[in-house]
Order: sequence, then structure tokens, then C-alpha cells
Amino acid sequence: MSLIVVGSMAYDAIETPFGKTDWIVGGAATYAAYAASNFIKPINQVSIVGYDFAKEEMDELKKRGVNLEGVEVVKDKKSFFWSGRYHLDMNSRDTLVTDLNVLADFNPIIPESYQGSEFLMLGNVLPSLQISVVEQLKTRPKLIAMDTMNFWMDNALDDLKRLLTMVDVLLVNDSEARQLSGQFSLVKAAKEIQKMGPKYLVIKKGEHGALLFHKDQVFFAPALPLEEVFDPTGAGDTFAGGFIGHIAQTRDVSFENMKTAIIVGSAMASFCVEKFGPTRLKEITKADIDGRIRQFVDLVNFDIELV
Amino acid sequence: MSLIVVGSMAYDAIETPFGKTDWIVGGAATYAAYAASNFIKPINQVSIVGYDFAKEEMDELKKRGVNLEGVEVVKDKKSFFWSGRYHLDMNSRDTLVTDLNVLADFNPIIPESYQGSEFLMLGNVLPSLQISVVEQLKTRPKLIAMDTMNFWMDNALDDLKRLLTMVDVLLVNDSEARQLSGQFSLVKAAKEIQKMGPKYLVIKKGEHGALLFHKDQVFFAPALPLEEVFDPTGAGDTFAGGFIGHIAQTRDVSFENMKTAIIVGSAMASFCVEKFGPTRLKEITKADIDGRIRQFVDLVNFDIELV
Repeated sequence: MSLIVVGSMAYDAIETPFGKTDWIVGGAATYAAYAASNFIKPINQVSIVGYDFAKEEMDELKKRGVNLEGVEVVKDKKSFFWSGRYHLDMNSRDTLVTDLNVLADFNPIIPESYQGSEFLMLGNVLPSLQISVVEQLKTRPKLIAMDTMNFWMDNALDDLKRLLTMVDVLLVNDSEARQLSGQFSLVKAAKEIQKMGPKYLVIKKGEHGALLFHKDQVFFAPALPLEEVFDPTGAGDTFAGGFIGHIAQTRDVSFENMKTAIIVGSAMASFCVEKFGPTRLKEITKADIDGRIRQFVDLVNFDIELV
Repeated sequence: MSLIVVGSMAYDAIETPFGKTDWIVGGAATYAAYAASNFIKPINQVSIVGYDFAKEEMDELKKRGVNLEGVEVVKDKKSFFWSGRYHLDMNSRDTLVTDLNVLADFNPIIPESYQGSEFLMLGNVLPSLQISVVEQLKTRPKLIAMDTMNFWMDNALDDLKRLLTMVDVLLVNDSEARQLSGQFSLVKAAKEIQKMGPKYLVIKKGEHGALLFHKDQVFFAPALPLEEVFDPTGAGDTFAGGFIGHIAQTRDVSFENMKTAIIVGSAMASFCVEKFGPTRLKEITKADIDGRIRQFVDLVNFDIELV
């Protein structure tokens, strides 16, 4: 029982209507690992960081069962840095700075000890690197999930299309699903994307919830209505971590269980947005998570008698 | 067991990315009546139309148990006319023409035969007219629901606030809830609005579903993911008609039953958008409605074991 998580580990500077932080740990693989670590150990992390990545953060991850053997530490370069400012609606943001730093040299090498991992979460990086990871694995994982972004649809579409034939689950947001498929209707987009390879498609809609498509089946999970979304950074990656974490924990790749995984992902994302960066993810307990999942049950549960 | 529906009956000209119609029946009370007529009879309609309102439409409504005694027919004026064009995302539209015509003279008179109706749906008209309807009723209905719009928040806020103290349920869209409350967070908006009077608040989010708030409870119903939203005109009014229709049918004003009513409203709205105007609402059968509600059950139903 093990999970490989591939993606960026970074530092972010974030400004929201509620506050500002100049330096907080971030990166897709960081959020995914923190979320997934509530459900499965070990998490075999594959990433790259610079000399500035805090030892305390590494220790915290290790303590949670995150194996860092596959995280390259570059001694003379800085970690990937992103800075952004959110608008009042929290659905849109301006990127202020993107310093690739070590990420420009990322060339993931899968350690021998990671071989045989049953689950693989490919965070959003260059599609050719995601392909390289899949090709390095001697045994195909039971389930491969991937994230990507519109930038690669514009700039590396051939690689992205090849990668799509190699994976089971694609997680993207609604605008990415529309761009990839050329369809405005998400139902039609889901049909087109399934033809490209992934048998399962998760469309993340932020505060409007998430959809899971598989063949003619569809499942919807709302986002938890919150008094305040303090900082949405990493919510999508946290969702992905909770999703794959639940599947890896249960080792059940059925559609029914993926529905539950979507709820788990939504619950984890609802914690993520409560504080800056992954702060809240480091505080929560199993009881907190169970309580939050119960809120989702209450949120959507209804009785109806059809006579 | 009876329901009063108050609001506009009109003609619309509609342009969507999928087609165009120059003349189709519309109006909030028309949609609400067609939707509610699947669940309760009689529907005591209160509205005003001009000489151009088709006899066939009146006959169709009567056949469905809609009592038209409270619908004033003005012999020398035209019916309210609205024309609009939808953008590709179907969430935004441009109003091209608004000819109030008879609606400028609307002064609802409740016929004696409507007295004692148990349920009241106040469609979006001038708040002072909505107040007048409530004040004409000798026995307060078991439940009063109302719709309104941002225009009245800008132009008749005092009347609107007075009306809010007289009703049980407010149905508005997300931007209206934000404007009325001065809160961006819908959770905070719901708290503020409940302080203004309505013990129940329904926030309609179009393709993103609907939320029901009551005290500290919240329920969410998604919109059905559709291949094509052909014409969203009237979807919100159809939702309201299904919502109040189910409540009137069951005579149960509990929060639990309102959750079901939200699902019924969502199911009715999902039919409405499939064809121009209320066309689809005239075609569907009880079996169609039950089938659609089953789709909602499948859409949100999940199993999780919390140990």
C-alpha cells in the first residue's frame, strides 16, 4: 500500500482580501502530500527543491510518512517561487511573480525503493516529465491520476495527448476541461476527454464543487459553503491529495468508491482554504476530517418517496 | 389544498447560441404555474395580460388546474413583453427590450374565491404590490414564499424590507443575496437576510445549483449537468414553481421537506432549459419528473463509513 506523488514543492507569496504572506510553503506536491498523509503511508514524494527549502518542513513531512528520497535538493539554487493576488470573489487571481528556479531543471528520477507503488498522482508539471515518471515504473500502478493546466494545452499538446492515453483519471478545472475538449458543455467535454484516454474525469469547479464522470455516469460533490474563504491557494492540489489518498487507503478503484474519494477530497479542500497555505492542513485531526465529512452528508442528503 | 401564484404573464423574444424565437409565452407566474401544476390543484393565478395573450395558452393553463379568475385581461393594451439575448455561457444575458405594457397598471385584486389558500408564491413584481396581496388575504397562508430582484433593492428598498418581515421564504439568486445583505460570503449573506425576516432562504445559482439556509442548517442541490442548456429563460421561476408546488402538495413546511422541494424545483428547472420558453414544461409527464428526480438521487448519493 503506497502512493507516489509527483509535482512541485515551492514557496509562495499570497495576497487575499483578508491578509498577506510573503513566504509560505506551497507547491502542488506539498499540498497533495499533506492531504493524502491522513489516509495512507508511505507517500513516495518526487520533487525538486532549492537550498532555501526549510528543514522543519521536510521534517514535518517525514513525520507524516512522506518519503523524501525522490526529492532532489539543489544546493546552489532557490526553490520554485510563486506570488499571486486574489480578487474579492476568490475565483480569479493575478500572478505577480513566477520564478521557476530549480523547477527549470526538474528531471524526476524514481528511486528503486518507490518501484511497486500501487497508486500514482501526477501533479501539474511539464507533460513530458509526467510521461517520464510513468515510463520509469516497472510495474504499472493500479491507478494513475494526473493534473495538468491550460499552459500545457497551449504549449505541449502532443505530449499531453500522449500522456492522457497512459492514465486512468484526469483532474482539471472547468475552463481546462473546456479548452482540452473544445466543448463548452461540461457533459460534452467529459465525453470528448474520455475518448482521449482517461476513463475517469474529475472537473473541479472551486466554490461550485466538483463533478466526476465515468462513461454515462456522473456524480457531483458541492464545495462546503464557508463563512470565509481565507486563501484558496492549493485547494485543488489538496482536493487531489484527499481523492487519491482515500483511493489508496481503500485500494478500491470502483466508481462508487471514487464518489466517496471526491467527498474526501472536497472535505480536505474545505480545510485548506481556512488559513494561509497548508497551515490548516497541518493542524487537523482524524476527528476533524470525520466531522467535516459528516457535514457533507448533511449538506446533500435528502429523502424523497417516488410513488 | 390550494396555492396562489402572483406575478407576470408575458411574451418573450429570446435569442440563445442555439436558436431564436420572436414570440413565445413567458412571465414568472406562467412558468411557476406550469411547474407547480404537476403537484397541486387548483393554482389560483394572480396576474395581468393584454388583448394579445393567446386563448390557447389560457385554455392550456385551465386544463392543468390553473384558476384564472385573478388574471385581469386588459382589452386595449398589449401584454408585458421582454426580449433578451444570451451569451455563450448562458449565465449572462443582454436585455434588448422591456415593454411593460399592461404590467405598468398591475394592481392585483384577490378574488373572494382565492381566500383561504394555504400557500402563496409571490413572483417578482413591485414590492408594494406583493405587500398588497399579503394584506388582502383574510387568513395568513401556511407558507409565504417570495422572489424579488436587484432592481427593487435599488429602487424600492423600504417596501422590500417591509415585505421581508411578512414572508417565510425568500428565493433570490446569488448576486441578489449579496446585494441585499451587503455580504459577499453566501453563508454570511444568509445570516443577514434571515435577520430581515424570512426564516428560510433559497439562493439560486443557476448551473451551479441552489442552497437552502435555515438557522445554522444548510442544504445544497446541484443543477443537473446537461449536454445542452438550450434556453435558460424561466428556469428560476420554474424552480420556484416546483419548490412551492411540492410543499403545497405535501403540506409539510419542515426543513427536511423543503430540502426535497429544492430537489423537485431543480428537477423542474432542468426540464425548462431543454427547449424554448415553457415548451418542455408542457410536454413532460409524472414519469418524466420521477425519472429526473432519480437522476438527482444518483448524482449526489454516496456511501461512506466513518469509523
